[in-house]
Amino acid sequence: MKLLLEKIEEVYSRIREDINHTPVMTSTTLNNETNAICFLKMENYQRTGSFKIRGALNAIICLSEEKKAKGVTTHSSGNFAQALSLASKMARVKATVVMPENAPKIKVAATKGYGAEVVFCGTKPGDREEMAQSLIDEYDYTLIHSSNDMNIIYGQSTATYELIKEVGELDYVFAPCGGGGLLSGTAIATKSLCSEGKVIGVEPKNADDAFRSFRDGKIYPSINPNTIADGLKTSLGNYTFKVIRENVDKIITVTEEEIVNAMEFLWARMKHVVEPSGAVSLAGVLSDKIDLHQKRVGVVISGGNIDLTNFFELIRNKIK
Amino acid sequence: MKLLLEKIEEVYSRIREDINHTPVMTSTTLNNETNAICFLKMENYQRTGSFKIRGALNAIICLSEEKKAKGVTTHSSGNFAQALSLASKMARVKATVVMPENAPKIKVAATKGYGAEVVFCGTKPGDREEMAQSLIDEYDYTLIHSSNDMNIIYGQSTATYELIKEVGELDYVFAPCGGGGLLSGTAIATKSLCSEGKVIGVEPKNADDAFRSFRDGKIYPSINPNTIADGLKTSLGNYTFKVIRENVDKIITVTEEEIVNAMEFLWARMKHVVEPSGAVSLAGVLSDKIDLHQKRVGVVISGGNIDLTNFFELIRNKIK
Repeated sequence: MKLLLEKIEEVYSRIREDINHTPVMTSTTLNNETNAICFLKMENYQRTGSFKIRGALNAIICLSEEKKAKGVTTHSSGNFAQALSLASKMARVKATVVMPENAPKIKVAATKGYGAEVVFCGTKPGDREEMAQSLIDEYDYTLIHSSNDMNIIYGQSTATYELIKEVGELDYVFAPCGGGGLLSGTAIATKSLCSEGKVIGVEPKNADDAFRSFRDGKIYPSINPNTIADGLKTSLGNYTFKVIRENVDKIITVTEEEIVNAMEFLWARMKHVVEPSGAVSLAGVLSDKIDLHQKRVGVVISGGNIDLTNFFELIRNKIK
Repeated sequence: MKLLLEKIEEVYSRIREDINHTPVMTSTTLNNETNAICFLKMENYQRTGSFKIRGALNAIICLSEEKKAKGVTTHSSGNFAQALSLASKMARVKATVVMPENAPKIKVAATKGYGAEVVFCGTKPGDREEMAQSLIDEYDYTLIHSSNDMNIIYGQSTATYELIKEVGELDYVFAPCGGGGLLSGTAIATKSLCSEGKVIGVEPKNADDAFRSFRDGKIYPSINPNTIADGLKTSLGNYTFKVIRENVDKIITVTEEEIVNAMEFLWARMKHVVEPSGAVSLAGVLSDKIDLHQKRVGVVISGGNIDLTNFFELIRNKIK
């Protein structure tokens, strides 16, 4: 584990100046409800509104000068699009992001706003990958995958590294699981810093491919999952699957209702704007599936990118 | 100013163990938009969801043992009701809060939840004061006013005291103004800690009684103001007016639209749940009424208590 820690620290020293050291939040009410001592790592306050900038920046910095000169690409309709866009701008690398033509306007605008070129593709399965591949064939871009990449995983590990360095050793750390980049990073950071720390992955019940993959020892694809946690729809890759199998203690699932309840707790009681995917780890804590009595529990809150246009339209109608 | 600072530090040492040391937040986007270096003091993360607990706790602790034994009362439909309720529980003092019978259920529930007894009154002007007076006559309770009380003002000063102790001297500090307790406290803390610090009060244009009072040198009442910033509808009292006249440099006003725009910036860009009154100070910063070019600017974000029931109803409909 000493080598692993050295590697995480090397990555952290590479990116720390360019990312936010996000705050850790606590709540007396939450501790009373869970009978635990919970430390929430608030990556909704990270640059671009999610943890994804950590991995994106590390992956780009690690490229050879030749690859940097040619540029990078990825396909994403969500937080990784924005993260790669900003990370590329910071590293002065050209980025071209493939987004489906029906991606939310607000996400397209944010991705363009950070500087990346956006190329649209169709909405059928495979359309994104095909478009990205055609760009790679034509321009020799390097594909940066949003999760299944060891440089991405090490980058994401720095969130939990910061958390544990700040609050001390933890008995449990909960993280959401989509493609598995954050969960993998959470796991290696926890295992390298906490002698007894257990890592719990939390997945929407309606998108439980990682839960089943972990249980059965083989990667299941995620087929048309129907969950409000739109950041957790992707499936594991070979790298994330390997890291998760070796370092995660358990994967549990939560219902859509549990996700919304956790989100409401974060907004109404704790005053944090957190997206549905970001509330999934807390939903796991509140689900009572793991006995946390008097345990020190880390909870990675992954992001806060949620479209508030309708909500503010309602408010603007009030002042007319 | 040395004596003033000693007084603030005495108050702070009295309450610090029982309140949250709230975080200071910054935003690159905000700094770019304002050409300033802004430090937001996030009292929405304070216990009970607003700064009010600071003053309430100080006022109660300062009571004689005899008065503590008899109990306290106040009239409030908003954040002070909750704050006095929790502060009383902490100090083991009985609290009876007068609330209008049409007060939002969520606020009544929160006030009761912290332990106070709630007594309802009519909704006509004067009904609240009358009911509180009848309780005082009958039970000999001590009235704790939500703003016009030097112990309240000193309590509220600790928010800006914490801010400046954390980030260093500031050129400007912006705070919202309703009854003036927070603005008074902000002013004395700024003047005692910053040799050149200017204090700007910000008020809704639709509830500009403090603006006019400050300009004309006499207290105007606040008559049926129509603003979304429901925490800022009250008028100044003799104590807050005196402190503000002597220590505040300017009061500016902002429109309802500016308030909602600032609120949207806080929610959508910075991911903080802030109530309309809490966004008023930032609306003042963004209004361009004060030249902040390259200045170090403190912004007191006063609270985050907003009813999210409708918003979460919309979200729950999505997952049905």
